[in-house]
Amino acid sequence: MNNDPTICAIATAQGGAIGIIRVSGNEAIEITEKIFSPAGKADRQLHDRAPYSIAFGRITDGNGETVDEVLVSVFRAPHSYTGEDSTEISCHGSAYILQRVMTLLIENGCAAAGPGEFTQRAFLNGKMDLSQAEAVADLISSTNKATHDMALSQLKGHFSNELSDLREHLLKLTSLLELELDFSDHEELEFADRTELYALANDIHQRLVSLIHSFEIGNALKNGIPVAIVGNTNVGKSTLLNLLLHEEKAIVSDVHGTTRDFIEDSTIINGIQFRFVDTAGIRDTDDVVESIGIERTYQKLQEAKIVLWLIDRQPTTAEIDDIKEHVDGKRLIVVRNKIDKSGETTSADESVKTPSAATGLASDWLSDSLAGTGYKTVDISAKYGTNIPQLEQLIVEAADIPQISESDIVIPSARHYSALLRADECLQRVIDSMNIGLSGDLLAEDLRMVIEHLADITGEERITTEETLQKIFREFCIGK
Amino acid sequence: MNNDPTICAIATAQGGAIGIIRVSGNEAIEITEKIFSPAGKADRQLHDRAPYSIAFGRITDGNGETVDEVLVSVFRAPHSYTGEDSTEISCHGSAYILQRVMTLLIENGCAAAGPGEFTQRAFLNGKMDLSQAEAVADLISSTNKATHDMALSQLKGHFSNELSDLREHLLKLTSLLELELDFSDHEELEFADRTELYALANDIHQRLVSLIHSFEIGNALKNGIPVAIVGNTNVGKSTLLNLLLHEEKAIVSDVHGTTRDFIEDSTIINGIQFRFVDTAGIRDTDDVVESIGIERTYQKLQEAKIVLWLIDRQPTTAEIDDIKEHVDGKRLIVVRNKIDKSGETTSADESVKTPSAATGLASDWLSDSLAGTGYKTVDISAKYGTNIPQLEQLIVEAADIPQISESDIVIPSARHYSALLRADECLQRVIDSMNIGLSGDLLAEDLRMVIEHLADITGEERITTEETLQKIFREFCIGK
Repeated sequence: MNNDPTICAIATAQGGAIGIIRVSGNEAIEITEKIFSPAGKADRQLHDRAPYSIAFGRITDGNGETVDEVLVSVFRAPHSYTGEDSTEISCHGSAYILQRVMTLLIENGCAAAGPGEFTQRAFLNGKMDLSQAEAVADLISSTNKATHDMALSQLKGHFSNELSDLREHLLKLTSLLELELDFSDHEELEFADRTELYALANDIHQRLVSLIHSFEIGNALKNGIPVAIVGNTNVGKSTLLNLLLHEEKAIVSDVHGTTRDFIEDSTIINGIQFRFVDTAGIRDTDDVVESIGIERTYQKLQEAKIVLWLIDRQPTTAEIDDIKEHVDGKRLIVVRNKIDKSGETTSADESVKTPSAATGLASDWLSDSLAGTGYKTVDISAKYGTNIPQLEQLIVEAADIPQISESDIVIPSARHYSALLRADECLQRVIDSMNIGLSGDLLAEDLRMVIEHLADITGEERITTEETLQKIFREFCIGK
Repeated sequence: MNNDPTICAIATAQGGAIGIIRVSGNEAIEITEKIFSPAGKADRQLHDRAPYSIAFGRITDGNGETVDEVLVSVFRAPHSYTGEDSTEISCHGSAYILQRVMTLLIENGCAAAGPGEFTQRAFLNGKMDLSQAEAVADLISSTNKATHDMALSQLKGHFSNELSDLREHLLKLTSLLELELDFSDHEELEFADRTELYALANDIHQRLVSLIHSFEIGNALKNGIPVAIVGNTNVGKSTLLNLLLHEEKAIVSDVHGTTRDFIEDSTIINGIQFRFVDTAGIRDTDDVVESIGIERTYQKLQEAKIVLWLIDRQPTTAEIDDIKEHVDGKRLIVVRNKIDKSGETTSADESVKTPSAATGLASDWLSDSLAGTGYKTVDISAKYGTNIPQLEQLIVEAADIPQISESDIVIPSARHYSALLRADECLQRVIDSMNIGLSGDLLAEDLRMVIEHLADITGEERITTEETLQKIFREFCIGK
């Protein structure tokens, strides 16, 4: 029991057949009862109902007029999402009805919930830790298998378990150091064997590093892997982009507020989101300085993890040098377009030819010129859509995302990443101090900081600041 | 039990915290079980659960990987919306999750539901009649009190009950005529007293007429009452329009697919929807022919039920004549704008002045010139928003919509309107025939037609054609 007000919110988007209003708090059932009339006269009111049961009836206003026929689900503390008494009112999905029911609930004592307030209560009531709560928002906004699997793994507590295990080890390390301290009071000697301590500290360090590294993948999966398409004007970049975006575009477009910034350029291949950026065309050699001088192209190229270089003829040495200069540290895929244009026929059926012969490009110039870039090559016809699946396969391979299973831990949150980094910094200081033979008491503070930084992720132990909580939960949608 | 496939659909709009998938049909529980694992190992599967209960657990795919943690509501025939076995799966509102669950259901034997298919099944299984089914779609798309109340009244069967009562009376009329027929076989005399028959027929006729007339109101409420704003350019039409649209615009904008066509121009005042149309400005007298020649202005004026004539100076005789010519049969509100402009001060605080003095317009020219138009007048300042509530009050009065309570019957459906018209036509023929003394057997066919036309509305008695059903239900959203 707490003194927080009972909250309510519309938990579904507007426009569907069904609209759900959630109510949670000490008075959830009592307030819902005030506006709910069970269907049958002999029917029991909500407080007489079993938890996890559904009541059919009407929502009525103060004048006894029916607002809607609804189903009300009843949940009781602590067996609910928030850990509090809760109801869910399933209405017809009319904007007017949902607003009316909300107004009635508020008139009867509810407060309108803020973004993420239900999940925040779930956290405060110990139903989940902070990293799990954050996973809820990620899960809701997931549009593909990769982001979904990451969020679900985190929600199911795999990350929390790893952190809790690390914590155990850190406490063990602390107690070993304290033991050493006890002895050192009595003897002038360094504690006999620090091997175990080293091993323990290093193991923790390795596990932290592994979590930190997973952020690269997690972040790429969450935000999409940037792919730059470069090439001369008229080489078919837009046509290719449309082909690549085609399949999933409609689905991505349907999602409100998740990927809006780059919605035109995002697609999902093999469950991974890619952000395609069509760069300004790199023009003829004569114009190289001008063409590659365009700030935007540079910028996009720099951000990209993968570069698709679209060509329809043998590039000049200057063009090759230019590309080589910019693909450092990136995956380069040379895409030879317009294979339909060369040879004696342009019919779609016969467009798949021996690639190098078809494009009229010698194969070996590529291996000579681009040696060391680890490039891959594919021949396509953007016009006829030929070999696009092969290109997509190369893109997925270039993304180099390991297969993530439900139990893998991948960190998509910048907040967690930064906490892990800070934790590892402190741990590094502990290890360094151990290396130069500092005594245990001088290590204790750093060790405590490691534990605190990790605790920050899950929100345990020390009270997470109101500010942090607000920052986390305001990113949620209302009703969750 | 029937042989229809078990259907499934996402019943919520995308983008919310919660997403609901509905499953209905003989195999609803069985198919849902295939992809659902109850939370506790000892927990009962769905077929062991009581109807109207909720199970917590996980949706898993064929590889045993978790798709989401969900709540599943269980309903059993006939106590469900469709009258069939049903489940509702409440997921996290992620586009990816909802698609995955749909795919899993379909892989396990469900068919994807078409628009309105759940409600169509409710109709076919006798859970509601056709007019009630149609009310469900109206209820979901209702954005204001008036459309909501109409739809709810219809859903609760008030219209159906009236129709069923009319049917009783028609059957009584039929039997009386048959009785007369029996006697007339034996005697050459006309049946002793046709007074009762007349009274009965006229009563039915009156009730049909009353329903038919209610369509004018119902249609206006459903589609919004058209209000034309006319006046010279620069008189402040756009400013006024923005003032009038301001309050409810955001709410209306949130509703997908309901009022999109005139979304920019719709607002709700006192629970009634008005469609404001800003007409091309009527210019100076010299240009009268040109200005009022604009087809579009005419058209808009013609459709309007209410005309707001915005003026900021005394109109010319030609302008007055022009207005008079076009407001025939409409409600005219003369809106004198810029009351802040006249007088010795323009400060907002003092902008409400004696209206006629403020505008410098003599009051009596109005009553002289516009006598017989039943016009109303109000002085406003569009710039400062002065007297807008008074204007809105006049608009609501001009709309002349009677207060509709839950139990009133108002017909918003063109389909019902047309069926009622046809029914009344046939009934009129019955009355005419009675008037010229035709014998009962010649009236029987027309009487049968009256009953059939009414039965068409609720879909009883004779099988409503597949075509009609398709036409009705394809207007629904998916998932309902």
